[in-house]
Amino acid sequence: MSEEFITLTFPDGTSRQYHKNITGLEVAESISQGLARNALSITINGSIRDLSQPINSDGKITINTWDSEDGQYTFWHSSAHLMAEAVHELYPDAKFGIGPPIENGFYYDIDFGDQSFGQDQLEQVEKKMIELARQKSRFQKKNVSKEEALAHYTERGNEYKTDLISELEEGTITFYEQGNFIDLCRGPHLQDTSPIKAVKLTKLAGAYWRGDVNSKQLTRIYGIAFPKQKLLDEYLQQVEEAKKRDHKKLGKELGIYMMDNMVGPGLPLWLPNGTLIRRTLEQFLREEQKRRGYQEVITPHIANLNLYKTSGHYPYYKDSQFNPMEVDDDEYMLKPMNCPHHHRIYSNELRSYRDLPVRLAEFGTVYRYEQSGELNGLSRVRGFTQDDAHIYCTHDQLKDEIKNVIDLTQFVFNTFGMPVDIRLSFRDDNDEKYGGDMEYWERAQKEINEVADELGLDYKIVEGEASFYGPKIDFIIRDAIGRKWQLGTVQVDYVMPERFDLTYIGSDNDKHRPVIIHRAPFGSMERFVSILIEHFAGDFPLWLAPLQAKVLPISDEFNSHAEKCTAQLKSYGLRVETDTRSEKIGAKIRDAENSKIPYMLIVGERERENDTVSVRRHKLGDLGTFQFREFSETMKYEAVKRMLPPSSQSN
Amino acid sequence: MSEEFITLTFPDGTSRQYHKNITGLEVAESISQGLARNALSITINGSIRDLSQPINSDGKITINTWDSEDGQYTFWHSSAHLMAEAVHELYPDAKFGIGPPIENGFYYDIDFGDQSFGQDQLEQVEKKMIELARQKSRFQKKNVSKEEALAHYTERGNEYKTDLISELEEGTITFYEQGNFIDLCRGPHLQDTSPIKAVKLTKLAGAYWRGDVNSKQLTRIYGIAFPKQKLLDEYLQQVEEAKKRDHKKLGKELGIYMMDNMVGPGLPLWLPNGTLIRRTLEQFLREEQKRRGYQEVITPHIANLNLYKTSGHYPYYKDSQFNPMEVDDDEYMLKPMNCPHHHRIYSNELRSYRDLPVRLAEFGTVYRYEQSGELNGLSRVRGFTQDDAHIYCTHDQLKDEIKNVIDLTQFVFNTFGMPVDIRLSFRDDNDEKYGGDMEYWERAQKEINEVADELGLDYKIVEGEASFYGPKIDFIIRDAIGRKWQLGTVQVDYVMPERFDLTYIGSDNDKHRPVIIHRAPFGSMERFVSILIEHFAGDFPLWLAPLQAKVLPISDEFNSHAEKCTAQLKSYGLRVETDTRSEKIGAKIRDAENSKIPYMLIVGERERENDTVSVRRHKLGDLGTFQFREFSETMKYEAVKRMLPPSSQSN
Repeated sequence: MSEEFITLTFPDGTSRQYHKNITGLEVAESISQGLARNALSITINGSIRDLSQPINSDGKITINTWDSEDGQYTFWHSSAHLMAEAVHELYPDAKFGIGPPIENGFYYDIDFGDQSFGQDQLEQVEKKMIELARQKSRFQKKNVSKEEALAHYTERGNEYKTDLISELEEGTITFYEQGNFIDLCRGPHLQDTSPIKAVKLTKLAGAYWRGDVNSKQLTRIYGIAFPKQKLLDEYLQQVEEAKKRDHKKLGKELGIYMMDNMVGPGLPLWLPNGTLIRRTLEQFLREEQKRRGYQEVITPHIANLNLYKTSGHYPYYKDSQFNPMEVDDDEYMLKPMNCPHHHRIYSNELRSYRDLPVRLAEFGTVYRYEQSGELNGLSRVRGFTQDDAHIYCTHDQLKDEIKNVIDLTQFVFNTFGMPVDIRLSFRDDNDEKYGGDMEYWERAQKEINEVADELGLDYKIVEGEASFYGPKIDFIIRDAIGRKWQLGTVQVDYVMPERFDLTYIGSDNDKHRPVIIHRAPFGSMERFVSILIEHFAGDFPLWLAPLQAKVLPISDEFNSHAEKCTAQLKSYGLRVETDTRSEKIGAKIRDAENSKIPYMLIVGERERENDTVSVRRHKLGDLGTFQFREFSETMKYEAVKRMLPPSSQSN
Repeated sequence: MSEEFITLTFPDGTSRQYHKNITGLEVAESISQGLARNALSITINGSIRDLSQPINSDGKITINTWDSEDGQYTFWHSSAHLMAEAVHELYPDAKFGIGPPIENGFYYDIDFGDQSFGQDQLEQVEKKMIELARQKSRFQKKNVSKEEALAHYTERGNEYKTDLISELEEGTITFYEQGNFIDLCRGPHLQDTSPIKAVKLTKLAGAYWRGDVNSKQLTRIYGIAFPKQKLLDEYLQQVEEAKKRDHKKLGKELGIYMMDNMVGPGLPLWLPNGTLIRRTLEQFLREEQKRRGYQEVITPHIANLNLYKTSGHYPYYKDSQFNPMEVDDDEYMLKPMNCPHHHRIYSNELRSYRDLPVRLAEFGTVYRYEQSGELNGLSRVRGFTQDDAHIYCTHDQLKDEIKNVIDLTQFVFNTFGMPVDIRLSFRDDNDEKYGGDMEYWERAQKEINEVADELGLDYKIVEGEASFYGPKIDFIIRDAIGRKWQLGTVQVDYVMPERFDLTYIGSDNDKHRPVIIHRAPFGSMERFVSILIEHFAGDFPLWLAPLQAKVLPISDEFNSHAEKCTAQLKSYGLRVETDTRSEKIGAKIRDAENSKIPYMLIVGERERENDTVSVRRHKLGDLGTFQFREFSETMKYEAVKRMLPPSSQSN
């Protein structure tokens, strides 16, 4: 091939030849004018770049639009600069720290000096941003020497940027300029400011320079921006909806969990309703795992440090673990992972190839030290229970086992009405950090790919995202309001079998190493329940609802009949109570509705005579009158079949 | 009443007047000559005394015979002296340390100096003991001064006894002499050596003087003695049977649990079969508790030390707890008790009298530091899970709640075919250590007594055995080979409601203190499973058996039919596997029998044609041929009804 040409490979696997030094924008134009119009940046061989940057070698290319994470990353990065430009216009003495894009939007840390800056000033900045965006200022990249860069900021008295520059290497320093604002920045950026059409500055916070409490505290302005007003409106609505669904608020209201200062932060106490939900989820998974040949085990919550030294969890992850305790002449630690314990159970017996796969499952509680500032309700805690399992199999069994694991995970999330995206995290061939035999890696990645195709999954391959141990599969679920959550990971492991000297006797009578699959569909019971609360907004499907129905007698006269109905429903294995308070029926309905109880069963004269029940469903209102026995059967069916509530199905 | 007379009250509540200074033996004679013949000692106001000691004040008296613990205590105490006499005859230079009675028998720590003493010498000592016992030597008590006592042992060069005497107070020192042997001893003893008819010295061990590793190691001889040879034979048979049932041996053979040095001593890992048994037991209790209005909670395994300082568990029980860990600027500890956590859940809400009783249950794992030498399989561990619950109720509700708790505990142990003895541990009116309002104590003790009568229980009241917190009820179960185990305790608690400032709003709108009942029928899942293994000798009832049936095809030809049968049984919720190995049917039966699988279902030509199954029951052999469907129903019924295995029922 001529040196004048390069070959670019697109996400769909097709390749095209281009002249060397073609820009990303020109590549987009070569495909379609529409794509070029919507292009925000490109990703080439895993790195995001400006559309205007020349491409001079072969590679994998993606044209990033708003619909991709990389596109949004570029968009929000430029939005941070736009915000800085606006602040600079309004507060010429403000000094800027760092201003990166984040998961939802961006922030910038700013030293306003003696000037006060508060909530009331945010709108002014928003307006200025829109005004500046309309000027369609180009983002211009400039290479500068370290000396020039330092001189630029020293002159302006900005000690933050000089602090940053002092750590950079000569030859790598670039500035980006748009309008009247220039900033130390590695990029990439949009072509110009015009795509930024809607802006919302969401929050103000204090932030120590470089996170160091001994440094100066700057003002952090959080914001988000969109290419269309409609998208911002939708986003704000989602935020509003998320607030209503906040698991910390609902968790308290529904008696799911509590936190207690005397016990300690990050250590939730599960209240009766939460315990019921958790036990029900455990039983659901336990049954499904039993069906698929898993064996349950229980291992202690502490172990001699030697165990974690063998696994490498100590001292490697020391900072995220609790301090060891002295016991006799040894040190013990709260279990940070279940795996080493399961490996010891595996090697407790001589295993033959006939015994494999061995699938050990445990609802195993692990402990991680998190900074107290990072703790958040049930979603970020210091002790949590994983729905963990480890599958020990031969290389020949790996493909089937992965298929089984993916199938289980999909089955689980389908039950909750949560669509799943799958990401295959593979090895970066140019990186040498990976453990285990490369031949096995190749085979596993190929097989994972095949399984994903055979199961007809919608998946994305991300090279370089595999762990040191082996390739992995991440499941990203979408909840009822469209938010994404990374849950269960499936991880192939070639390293631990070596470290724990795990073997099996093959049909050749020789010792062989098994391969391990780590997996946990829910991830952690704590975090998954927090997501479920928000996904269902507390309106749990019947099978998960702590109290499934309340029988409401119209007046005291019908209390004993109501109790009879309750007893009958309980005999069906349903969780039911009677409201025998001397309240008006309207009040009883209102209270049951507020407690999010799925069914309200009203009984009075007519119901008692005809052996019927008048049924109300939470959020749906009156469903009509049914024969009591018939309704009991229907209700039991709904619970046993783990049906989704009608309110969530319509989402 | 004249000063010449005293009143003695007997266990049945009757009282009699006697002349002052009457002896226990004379009291026994006043009742019957038979009783006097069998009398070993008396217990008066809680203290055991010689039969010959004069009684000079009113009191509660029990004439102790072999059938009582106090009688056996006396018998074994005298047996220890008899053994020392025998050793003294055979080894005149041997020096004696301490020689107390223990739960089963007695021991004596002896310094044999340069003489060797080993297993081979035990029989010689046994023979000498019987020979000396037949001499009917009287046990004679002598009061000695401290000076005389010291002189006696200094002369004989016995530094152990002088060490002991140096700590005694003048005026309290007594010797007991029988035959040619005299010993420092507080008593009590038998009248003479003649009741000791059968002796077995069971074990030799090293024992440091006063348990101090820096002191001299003495030879500890363990032994047991009986008033009849038949009783010794029965005892030895029980020991033999207990060895066969040893849960450490069976636990390994049946894949119930493992210990691992890398994890640490006293920290069992539950293997799949053990996990299944444990989960089944938990589910059994959970269902029963749900029926009785308990609510399940889950609390973290660590907490800030402040929690245990509030409860008083720290530093009071410091020595039996794990060391605290530093977290942020606080100290945290592995949970030694679940109670404080439950108290915090109770006080998380404002409670009204209408909400009471609140019954919080948890399968809560706690950690206790035990010396590594004290650890023993599953029965003595460092981390264990209690089937714990705390009931918060009003004083008016206490009686009903206690009744409910006793009823639950009896139901539980009945299910396992374990007879229960009940001990009511009450306050000693002369002791002032007790917390809480004495009026409430009186009422609770009266009500506990009433409940025990109303339930028609066979109970024993032990005064002075109550805890500081309140009166308690101990359940002592008997296993299949007659051994006694103390399990579930029910404990009334007046102290923790104060310490945690627990309240409820009464119908008078004022704040009141609830009373707490602590209870745990199994005690700990670990210890209870160890007892169950030994009770059933590993032949678990169907509902608890990890694998309930194995389908055994007569030859490969019937494998697929066998798999069909297995699938059918599984659909009934039963745990069944197929043995498809190409082994002879005899070998398949033998293997299933060895694995203690309750049912072996043999299928061949005839069974396939007629849709029948040929059934063998573990230990019972062939049960005949049944219609497959009919047999499946029977098996399911046996499991669901939690029936005891026929082998254990016949015990």
